[in-house]
Amino acid sequence: MRGLLLDAGRLTFSADLPEPRLDEGSTTVRVVRAGICATDLALARGYMGFRGIPGHEFVGVALDGPLCGKRVVGEINAACGACPACRAGLGRHCPQRTVLGILAHGGAFAERLRLPTENLHAVPDTIGDDAATFTEPTAAAFEIVEQLAPAPGTSCLVVGDGKLGLLCAQVLAAHGTDVTLAGRHPDRCALIPQPVAFLERAFEAGSSPPTRRFALIVEATGNPEVLPRLFAVVEPRGTIVLKTTTERPTQLDLAPLVVDEVSLVGSRCGPFGPALDALANGRVEVEPMIEARYGLEEGSEAFEHAARPGALKVLLEP
Amino acid sequence: MRGLLLDAGRLTFSADLPEPRLDEGSTTVRVVRAGICATDLALARGYMGFRGIPGHEFVGVALDGPLCGKRVVGEINAACGACPACRAGLGRHCPQRTVLGILAHGGAFAERLRLPTENLHAVPDTIGDDAATFTEPTAAAFEIVEQLAPAPGTSCLVVGDGKLGLLCAQVLAAHGTDVTLAGRHPDRCALIPQPVAFLERAFEAGSSPPTRRFALIVEATGNPEVLPRLFAVVEPRGTIVLKTTTERPTQLDLAPLVVDEVSLVGSRCGPFGPALDALANGRVEVEPMIEARYGLEEGSEAFEHAARPGALKVLLEP
Repeated sequence: MRGLLLDAGRLTFSADLPEPRLDEGSTTVRVVRAGICATDLALARGYMGFRGIPGHEFVGVALDGPLCGKRVVGEINAACGACPACRAGLGRHCPQRTVLGILAHGGAFAERLRLPTENLHAVPDTIGDDAATFTEPTAAAFEIVEQLAPAPGTSCLVVGDGKLGLLCAQVLAAHGTDVTLAGRHPDRCALIPQPVAFLERAFEAGSSPPTRRFALIVEATGNPEVLPRLFAVVEPRGTIVLKTTTERPTQLDLAPLVVDEVSLVGSRCGPFGPALDALANGRVEVEPMIEARYGLEEGSEAFEHAARPGALKVLLEP
Repeated sequence: MRGLLLDAGRLTFSADLPEPRLDEGSTTVRVVRAGICATDLALARGYMGFRGIPGHEFVGVALDGPLCGKRVVGEINAACGACPACRAGLGRHCPQRTVLGILAHGGAFAERLRLPTENLHAVPDTIGDDAATFTEPTAAAFEIVEQLAPAPGTSCLVVGDGKLGLLCAQVLAAHGTDVTLAGRHPDRCALIPQPVAFLERAFEAGSSPPTRRFALIVEATGNPEVLPRLFAVVEPRGTIVLKTTTERPTQLDLAPLVVDEVSLVGSRCGPFGPALDALANGRVEVEPMIEARYGLEEGSEAFEHAARPGALKVLLEP
């Protein structure tokens, strides 16, 4: 089949990739649309040493199994189903898991992929293909709400106005919190249905942080130099959510975390149900974030485009 | 009055220190016993640039005010009482606070100290002077339970078998969790009334970490090189409590925190009520941790003793 292959940090198109492996209990999906995310760009730079077909944001059509013929999106962690983590309902943390397009599991930048049938969710007709492609990152944003359940009115700061930051800001605002977005593009507030305040370049080297403090801060820049600056604007007993992995280590003076009793909370994949609901009822709007579309054959150009500073969502259409 | 003075990292005894300032609403306390803690040793090395009388662990007798004549211990954060943090009941995080013997507030290594009367707690007769001196660090250990309320049976690892680690292990074990202690002194398990497992030198440079994982880990070594090693033994969605500030920054690869959705929680001062209860009913035993006693005049020797590797509690008796 046609698709993109990543090997030792080199991305190539191939018309002759092997079909996905037919594991028991899994469903083959014809990919209709896929999205490039920051993790894909990191993998292409060599992060995690991934070799295979990348891509984990997609919408497609099930080609077999109980959902055959239906439009589907899919949770990306393929768990063993038998270990203590899986038995505790934490399949997303199964130590034997593979992860679609990220860890030992061929991904969505190809004509077809395969996932455990239980990972798939049928997509309501009210969600178009473009919007459905955002289900996975929208679910990742909902993970913050699932982990922390912030009360309505909680003062939230989302640092980073890229794709993930915009989704986190929308999800938190839709949840009723008081959201401030920090980034480089004030015009991006217009991409968020709810009103949000904006802080321009407030956490860059040499800039002065704002004087007000926030109860909940989401780090969505992926820049390891930003986190230490956030200790100055988190309330005592507040929480900083790390929503992105960074490829480089962070130099941290952790004394303020102890003195102010701050929590630093890692947050990864999230629940698909609330994400599909929010995309269906318009509480989260994603189409304005689409910046470009490429065919699979143009995969390298698509990755180059997605890697441009400030780029929003780049889609691949097999 | 007689006491110890810290100035630019130099500790001296003086028989001619000024009496503590008579702030409104505060009580003068004659110090009966005081304890040297790791924070005092850090202050003596220049941490926080403290100048004044150090010392924040004490038991004494109130010399005036509503508790006059009673034995008292005292919470160390003197709050303004009027700011939003104070009004929200978070006086321990008042940004205008002074902190006994740590921040702009003369401390307990002297004949007399003064604290807001509302900070003082009468000591039940069943708690001796030695044990009462441990109320403040015991409260700090209870802060973990107050912040996280671990369920009975939770797998806990306390890293560091010094004074604070031993108190955290006792408090967590008394709370019904399943405690493993990691450190350099296996014989110290005998200082804990409850049964605990022991891991010897498991998190030192070059040692292999254990293969089992823990839901709740308490970092109580103060060594910034230990924390990165704990990411390998915390369960997915688990919590690492930072119970000690470190004077040097930590080099951290935070990707495992994100991938495993781990929480890193700062923890400082805690509630005196549960600490006094536990000292009164014997669920926490502290006298076996006393290693030496010195007079105020021998303050430098006392600090040198407390700074010896592996030293347990050193008391000062005015």
